[in-house]
Amino acid sequence: MNIDSFDRLVGEFSRLPSVGKKTAQRYAYFLLTMPDADVQNFADAMLQAKKNIHYCKVCANFTDKEICDICSKPNKEPIICVVKEPKDVSALEKVREFNGSYHVLHGVINPLEGKGPNDINLMSLLDRVNKENIKEVIVATNPDVEGEATAIYIANLLKPLGVKVTRLAQGVAMGSELEFTDPVTLSRAIQSRREM
Amino acid sequence: MNIDSFDRLVGEFSRLPSVGKKTAQRYAYFLLTMPDADVQNFADAMLQAKKNIHYCKVCANFTDKEICDICSKPNKEPIICVVKEPKDVSALEKVREFNGSYHVLHGVINPLEGKGPNDINLMSLLDRVNKENIKEVIVATNPDVEGEATAIYIANLLKPLGVKVTRLAQGVAMGSELEFTDPVTLSRAIQSRREM
Repeated sequence: MNIDSFDRLVGEFSRLPSVGKKTAQRYAYFLLTMPDADVQNFADAMLQAKKNIHYCKVCANFTDKEICDICSKPNKEPIICVVKEPKDVSALEKVREFNGSYHVLHGVINPLEGKGPNDINLMSLLDRVNKENIKEVIVATNPDVEGEATAIYIANLLKPLGVKVTRLAQGVAMGSELEFTDPVTLSRAIQSRREM
Repeated sequence: MNIDSFDRLVGEFSRLPSVGKKTAQRYAYFLLTMPDADVQNFADAMLQAKKNIHYCKVCANFTDKEICDICSKPNKEPIICVVKEPKDVSALEKVREFNGSYHVLHGVINPLEGKGPNDINLMSLLDRVNKENIKEVIVATNPDVEGEATAIYIANLLKPLGVKVTRLAQGVAMGSELEFTDPVTLSRAIQSRREM
């Protein structure tokens, strides 16, 4: 189709993560078949979410309150789990292995992209560790190069404060096959082997 | 996250074709990281497209004019290509094997879903064949059960008018492997084999 408003809509859908032109066209065609009221609702949902949802003043996770539900919980353990993105909080909250709070960096240190420690939400973590009398910081950035580098940076930053800094264990994933596990993961799994 | 406006946005994204809850969440998270103005633009694009784009009065393809660009072209061949959906027009327009017009059914005959000939945009095709002095109708519905049934119905409907009714050739697709080609396609490819 050669219609400006269609192309514009396809362009907007293409901005979504992993959405190429073909998928964007599919979404746009689908939208045109939706009733007017439903499209209005969809657009409203976007604007409302963007308007209502902002960063928690404490942990910087998304919330529609001033301080998010997790940070406002009473009787939390004095543990902060540091993650790269809000969706990592969702993943970790599903397993509920600890009853502490989170700290969302909104990025990781990445010198190649010119991202230093001051370009992510890191310095407020120092304040929190002091003020909230934190005993342990679990660094749960992704197990990739930038995530590892960020974890090491955070460990060096926090250790002088006397707080325990831990990192998620690395090893073979449940249901995976040794044959197809990468060598780095395998060697870490051997290094951290545990007695049965 | 346990936020109403976030869940609502995820729900809206889930309506898009082949988008499950996980993908919808990914889109929603991404939207929250977009600048306010960009989200406003995205929502505007949806509303504008829905407002401006409607069915062409002749062929029922999507257009922002009263009669679409293809239908308004002068010196068209007296050929109508019948398709199920507007996106089929896009696919066929890319190859430009004929210089005629299209007719979009917006569905196919599907008794299991209670869809009869009057539930799709079929009857206006009869008028067009007469009025536009059409010599050939290419039935380009999908080569599946409903598409085939619809094609046969259209052929029976149009033949009394003296118009030539054709169907896209069926056979092995370019780049495919015989080993993995389904038996129906293979047998049609043999039946319609051509001399070299």
